Amino acid sequence: MVKVVECVPNFSEGRNKDVIEAIRTIILKHKDVQLLDFTPNGDHNRTDVTIIGAPEKVKAAALDIAMKCVELIDMNKHKGEHPRMGAIDVVPFIPISEVTMEECVTLANEFAKEFSKKTNVPCFLYEEAAKREDRRNLADVRRGEYEGIKEEIGKNPDKVPDYGPNKSHPTAGATAVGARFFLIAFNVNLGTTNVDIAKNIAKGVRQSSGGYRYVKAMGFDIKERNIVQVSMNLTNYQKTPIFRVFDTIKKEAERYGVPVIGSEIVGLIPLEAVVDVTDHYLQLENFKIDQVLEKKLLETKK
Amino acid sequence: MVKVVECVPNFSEGRNKDVIEAIRTIILKHKDVQLLDFTPNGDHNRTDVTIIGAPEKVKAAALDIAMKCVELIDMNKHKGEHPRMGAIDVVPFIPISEVTMEECVTLANEFAKEFSKKTNVPCFLYEEAAKREDRRNLADVRRGEYEGIKEEIGKNPDKVPDYGPNKSHPTAGATAVGARFFLIAFNVNLGTTNVDIAKNIAKGVRQSSGGYRYVKAMGFDIKERNIVQVSMNLTNYQKTPIFRVFDTIKKEAERYGVPVIGSEIVGLIPLEAVVDVTDHYLQLENFKIDQVLEKKLLETKK
Repeated sequence: MVKVVECVPNFSEGRNKDVIEAIRTIILKHKDVQLLDFTPNGDHNRTDVTIIGAPEKVKAAALDIAMKCVELIDMNKHKGEHPRMGAIDVVPFIPISEVTMEECVTLANEFAKEFSKKTNVPCFLYEEAAKREDRRNLADVRRGEYEGIKEEIGKNPDKVPDYGPNKSHPTAGATAVGARFFLIAFNVNLGTTNVDIAKNIAKGVRQSSGGYRYVKAMGFDIKERNIVQVSMNLTNYQKTPIFRVFDTIKKEAERYGVPVIGSEIVGLIPLEAVVDVTDHYLQLENFKIDQVLEKKLLETKK
Repeated sequence: MVKVVECVPNFSEGRNKDVIEAIRTIILKHKDVQLLDFTPNGDHNRTDVTIIGAPEKVKAAALDIAMKCVELIDMNKHKGEHPRMGAIDVVPFIPISEVTMEECVTLANEFAKEFSKKTNVPCFLYEEAAKREDRRNLADVRRGEYEGIKEEIGKNPDKVPDYGPNKSHPTAGATAVGARFFLIAFNVNLGTTNVDIAKNIAKGVRQSSGGYRYVKAMGFDIKERNIVQVSMNLTNYQKTPIFRVFDTIKKEAERYGVPVIGSEIVGLIPLEAVVDVTDHYLQLENFKIDQVLEKKLLETKK
């Protein structure tokens, strides 16, 4: 049994191939860490990276990535649809196997301390690593984005960073460093052009307006397909499972006479979450994740 | 990338602990083969074994298991609910990774030749390894079971074994050796005591009476729970997926006003089959099996 941590650094470049490749090259040099996903998104002008491995190795790789981002990305020229506050925007550590959330909180603190010391980029700790309740939610930490935070930091006493100088970095802004549970990015597509329906359903399922505890949701237009989308982050799939959120959205859509025409999982999903969906819809009795052949193979490989 | 074959020997003892443990001990001596499942069933008086590994290693382990069964099991004293023809009843080889069905057919032939030579147990090749169309279906090969086959073999020219002597072994009967696709044992439980409903639904979904191409099904009483069950083998989950069979049974049960109260997967299921169910019910667009975290981990481990 081996300790495994995941880290999902998001950096603010999804268009410039030279920059993207330079950062990918840095990651590939860390041969003791596995690169599971690397997805530049042009609309968001942002790249999501997923690396996995032993805690110390993952932290070292994340540090190298973060420093390269500070070197190559100028936030003063950055435009994109996704909210962002820094060149290396967020660095969350996620327990995968034989690692506690407390260990991930410690990793986040170590990372933020070392990174801010080396680069003078101020760091805010969020989610499970947050030192104040008003920084638990990433959206609160990132409010105002790069431009707004630059103005506010150093003036607003509630914006004093957890690590690093009390001012925004002139080109790299600020970074949110966190520890959190595995996050599933799950979107549901609705067969209508009325974005208000997606927005209303998003309101119904997300925690902030009375919905499920571990759901963040927004309603969007998908103009190129003439549909709308309920776009979600499921922040704890064990306590708020995908199937319950999906069924609720389907039911709410019915009320408007609108069909669910599809859904998507963006990036990775743990086997346990897939098994939970299968278990639910097939009404399985006594099914265990170890009955999945590949799970058994993985265990015998350890 | 490594060649992986699965073998699922079924032997005719599910009650006598000494015999069951003696056979388990033989398997555990084969350290280059992984024992994935070992499930004695008292009602069936039968044990299903699942081993996995490199083709030659799996064949060697299966041979040792089979010879021990011939040594320890006397079919003249065997009673159980499951159809059976021999002490070592069936030995199917299943391609898992980097192995073709043709290679599994070759393995089945080699196994049957060596096993029958060493023990004088006649072998019949079935499914993809069958040399005659009337032996493709295991149920046809096993018709008459141990007692009936003992009478028929040596008299009926259609019952000449593919390997070994043209007579039943006095205590071990005969063995079916095959090559086949991964088989999923899937049962659906209905909230009624009327077994005719389970039998009718089984008829509707199984190939032999007009149903799905890769479904074998029977209707049973589950007396201790006061329910009935549609008990199935899905012989090619890629072409006849679980969700379609499940939804059909649910729909047919509705026609009798009977609820589906649960289902079960007996033994192992490939990740691909679990993903197919999730993909279907969540109406996923463009989902790939590589998005499952553990699948990625398995691949990077190779």
